[in-house]
Amino acid sequence: MKILAILYHGHKAAEEEPRLLGTVENKLGLEDWLKSQGHELIVSASKEGPDSDFQKHIVDAEILITTPFHPGYLTRSIMEKAKNLKLCVTAGVGSDHIDLNAAVDHGIQVLEVSGSNVVSVAEHVVMSILLLVRNFVPAHEMIERGDWQVSDIARDAYDLEGKVVGTIGAGRIGYRVLQRLVPFNTKELLYYDYAPLPASAAEAVKARRVEDLKDFVSQCDVITVNCPLHEGTRGLVNAELLKHCKKGAWIVNTARGAICDKDAIAAALKSGQISGYSGDVWNVQPAPKDHVWRTMKNPLGAGNGMVPHYSGTTLDAQARYAAGVRSILENYLSGKPQDSANIIVGLGKYETKAYGQR
Amino acid sequence: MKILAILYHGHKAAEEEPRLLGTVENKLGLEDWLKSQGHELIVSASKEGPDSDFQKHIVDAEILITTPFHPGYLTRSIMEKAKNLKLCVTAGVGSDHIDLNAAVDHGIQVLEVSGSNVVSVAEHVVMSILLLVRNFVPAHEMIERGDWQVSDIARDAYDLEGKVVGTIGAGRIGYRVLQRLVPFNTKELLYYDYAPLPASAAEAVKARRVEDLKDFVSQCDVITVNCPLHEGTRGLVNAELLKHCKKGAWIVNTARGAICDKDAIAAALKSGQISGYSGDVWNVQPAPKDHVWRTMKNPLGAGNGMVPHYSGTTLDAQARYAAGVRSILENYLSGKPQDSANIIVGLGKYETKAYGQR
Repeated sequence: MKILAILYHGHKAAEEEPRLLGTVENKLGLEDWLKSQGHELIVSASKEGPDSDFQKHIVDAEILITTPFHPGYLTRSIMEKAKNLKLCVTAGVGSDHIDLNAAVDHGIQVLEVSGSNVVSVAEHVVMSILLLVRNFVPAHEMIERGDWQVSDIARDAYDLEGKVVGTIGAGRIGYRVLQRLVPFNTKELLYYDYAPLPASAAEAVKARRVEDLKDFVSQCDVITVNCPLHEGTRGLVNAELLKHCKKGAWIVNTARGAICDKDAIAAALKSGQISGYSGDVWNVQPAPKDHVWRTMKNPLGAGNGMVPHYSGTTLDAQARYAAGVRSILENYLSGKPQDSANIIVGLGKYETKAYGQR
Repeated sequence: MKILAILYHGHKAAEEEPRLLGTVENKLGLEDWLKSQGHELIVSASKEGPDSDFQKHIVDAEILITTPFHPGYLTRSIMEKAKNLKLCVTAGVGSDHIDLNAAVDHGIQVLEVSGSNVVSVAEHVVMSILLLVRNFVPAHEMIERGDWQVSDIARDAYDLEGKVVGTIGAGRIGYRVLQRLVPFNTKELLYYDYAPLPASAAEAVKARRVEDLKDFVSQCDVITVNCPLHEGTRGLVNAELLKHCKKGAWIVNTARGAICDKDAIAAALKSGQISGYSGDVWNVQPAPKDHVWRTMKNPLGAGNGMVPHYSGTTLDAQARYAAGVRSILENYLSGKPQDSANIIVGLGKYETKAYGQR
């Protein structure tokens, strides 16, 4: 059996740090085990264009392993060439780089390691909220360049206490964000989701649901995006919605870049309609060198907390999703049933509502 | 009555942002009120050397107002020239820039606005822990300079979940840090303090006291310093203690710079004995341009989260400590008793144990 894995390059870092499992070099720790079973494992970072290893090897692979951090985009047309493909495994959470409708049509199963990095991402969200609200980046840059002017930092620094924080999406990540915010004495925690939280879960974090999205954003000092990317959420945070935000709101998006409109976000930050934007997800990954989100700032020269897509690929998370991928492969190879929480697309049908299929 | 306030310059920022109350320009919002009462208010940022406004005006001032962010250092010898001085008010928390023993001897009262910015600082601590553990700074700098190499960031990025976090000092700030860490599912929360927490308080955050400091640091993945600076804590975190830390520990210090030995910290970070150091306090403030803490890094070129001293001077905190200073002045001018929580040195004696007087 041929198994194709599209992972990111680790180069020297991966040689020096064996815990960087999710790299081309360290192959999710699967190589010896799969070889011993007589299977072929092809691992590459080459993923763009018809001459890429991705498109070359997908034609006869039975299993495709990808990650959200360096996504191999499995389109319907590529899928049509993949005559042997039976299973796609996402090492991590978020399978929007796969055309899920096409997977349903082709009888290709799509699985994620669903719990593997939700805590990692939720921690990144809380960090990002704090560093925007408290104006960390310009403060650190001031120190690095040898300056010291407290008032230039303090004029745009606030406490999180007493602010209203709302999450778009209160699923596995969004809910963990709410849990971590409880002791910060926010004025209120809000959520927007297609379904209400169970009453006990909502009560545990004292979060209030707002059903209308414009109404929701108009009440938030901080908005955090924690929903999957699908047809219903692409461009959800756009120029029109941003007009309804409180002036000076902060936005954190570690879900998927394309949920927020690239140019609308940059314009809103530049004008001061929002005070900050932070996150690790981009509409294209790797982001081009001239991507406006790399350097956009608010009128005070602050408010950018962007990083490459890594919040869910900490060394702790890599250990968990590498183990999760192996477990999914073991089930597949031995014909055991998969953990239902991991199944996005089962045999010919969606098994989750998370990707907009209600 | 002459009142002298040593504050930091706000320049253009203070003109544009009236909520920057703690600046020379905005005078803690006290000017009109004090003038209307017939008092003289002198406000300046000039604080170093015999020709400074501080030393010029201290000789006949009855009240001195200072802040920890731009400290006017009130030594015993300066106090001896201050024949009229009756009251020192710290706009914020932390009065180590005043020789408290000398204040006792001279019958000068020292008061702080004790609750005014403890939440602000506690939030900064949690932010700093997250950004060190999760390796934020190099990730953001990578984006700014146009690069994208996830593995170079991920190799030094971890989750806070499952780590051991300990606070040196579990007082008003340290305890609030512990409270905010509870939902992060750390492996354990520890504290080191001269007195145990009340049982109910310890139970509420599930924190365990470790009585020996070396034993304490040897158990911590993350150490956060939240104690006052006094004779017993100056240089507490020194080369000898750092040897007892877990290799690769992270240290966050928003208490006072001089609690950590400057050169020992820089050496431990450079060698990798500690993985990161973050905070907003320095042994001298403003920090000199060539201060080693501005640019020190771990062997992977990461681990520096330093900022100027501003964690307790967010706009939210400034509103609280400006109101608190006014309240202390009102009590003084009208002969009313002060809030006991604000009194560091009363008439000829210490009113707190926090500064090492047990």
